[in-house]
Amino acid sequence: MNEFKVLEIKQSVFEDNDKQANLLREELKKDKTFLLNLMSSPGSGKTTTVLKTIKALENEMKIGVLEADIDSDVDARAVAKTNAKVIQLHTGGMCHLDADMTRQGLEGLKIDGIDFVILENVGNLVCPAEFDTGASKNIMILSVPEGDDKPLKYPLMFSIVDVLLINKIDAMEYFDFDLKAVEERAKKINPNIKIIPISAKTGEGMDKWFEWVRNEVKNWNQI
Amino acid sequence: MNEFKVLEIKQSVFEDNDKQANLLREELKKDKTFLLNLMSSPGSGKTTTVLKTIKALENEMKIGVLEADIDSDVDARAVAKTNAKVIQLHTGGMCHLDADMTRQGLEGLKIDGIDFVILENVGNLVCPAEFDTGASKNIMILSVPEGDDKPLKYPLMFSIVDVLLINKIDAMEYFDFDLKAVEERAKKINPNIKIIPISAKTGEGMDKWFEWVRNEVKNWNQI
Repeated sequence: MNEFKVLEIKQSVFEDNDKQANLLREELKKDKTFLLNLMSSPGSGKTTTVLKTIKALENEMKIGVLEADIDSDVDARAVAKTNAKVIQLHTGGMCHLDADMTRQGLEGLKIDGIDFVILENVGNLVCPAEFDTGASKNIMILSVPEGDDKPLKYPLMFSIVDVLLINKIDAMEYFDFDLKAVEERAKKINPNIKIIPISAKTGEGMDKWFEWVRNEVKNWNQI
Repeated sequence: MNEFKVLEIKQSVFEDNDKQANLLREELKKDKTFLLNLMSSPGSGKTTTVLKTIKALENEMKIGVLEADIDSDVDARAVAKTNAKVIQLHTGGMCHLDADMTRQGLEGLKIDGIDFVILENVGNLVCPAEFDTGASKNIMILSVPEGDDKPLKYPLMFSIVDVLLINKIDAMEYFDFDLKAVEERAKKINPNIKIIPISAKTGEGMDKWFEWVRNEVKNWNQI
């Protein structure tokens, strides 16, 4: 296992988060670093998806991971077993990251020469949707066992993401989950949302996801 | 379907939530109303558990339900099909309820003569754990697909609940979920926690849960 740092994040002093987020995004663009903000409920498969994504792409690009959590380091430990550079961010009870907190994490990671950074946000469908982190793209995972009514209950989250990964499709037969209904509900809120059904566990659909990441990183970094 | 009211909750004006929570708890004790605060991630099966609990106990006691959500009324619609009285609480973006917000909900429900009120809190493992709602008892549902590492990641939530329902045990074979590890991790944080594995879907283990509720309501209401 690689060593990893644990950073206790300070509450932001900036009133205008949107301004800070745009500033950070511009800097990352100049630095040729694509920042992906990954959000979901607890237990929907964020860390497994991160691990599989690193494995698929680590030979093509230099990858870093910011693991945000209230106060554990379980996820950073898992990622530290890969070749990606990882830092654990402790939010001290806060259930989101804003742009300044993300900046603290990136500085802690020491980002020079990193092409692709995954920010695994705090497991939550509410607060993280309310704060622009400065990410290049926002991604949400909804897992099949969580149910197909989630776009109705968390419309803000569905409205701000570029990609919706529907995870644990291997368990579809076990749950009453209407994939078509989710797609319709999500697209009603966000017509441009890209929906990719996956199983991070079995690998089903993951190639489509890796291809999306590969293209976005290339476009952002103008390779 | 019964009619139900939708109440837009106002942000609390009280600085000392603990004091408000204790006040509310004392009033509920005098009114012989047992208030259960039910918390979990989105999609862990709160509403299904509520529906099954109402069905099992509605002939023995008068039941009311407070359905808290950011801004949908999906859950209240489901509960309105039962004989229980239900009100939908909209938190206006806030991911928790505090004691004053709970009081607003109870007043909206018009609580006279109700023995047992279930507060279905906002789906979240962080914020709801930080605010005492004034409930008689606090319950958390962890569902099998969410994973067995949750006590490590959300210790505050596990530390404040009286009962941990481990739901969706019918799907156990589909997921890498170590029930014994969860029990050990939860008890390390909270030695007095009562753990009941259930499947709200198939009914497995539910009798034990109903029995717990029945006894608690009786003891609280001094029947």
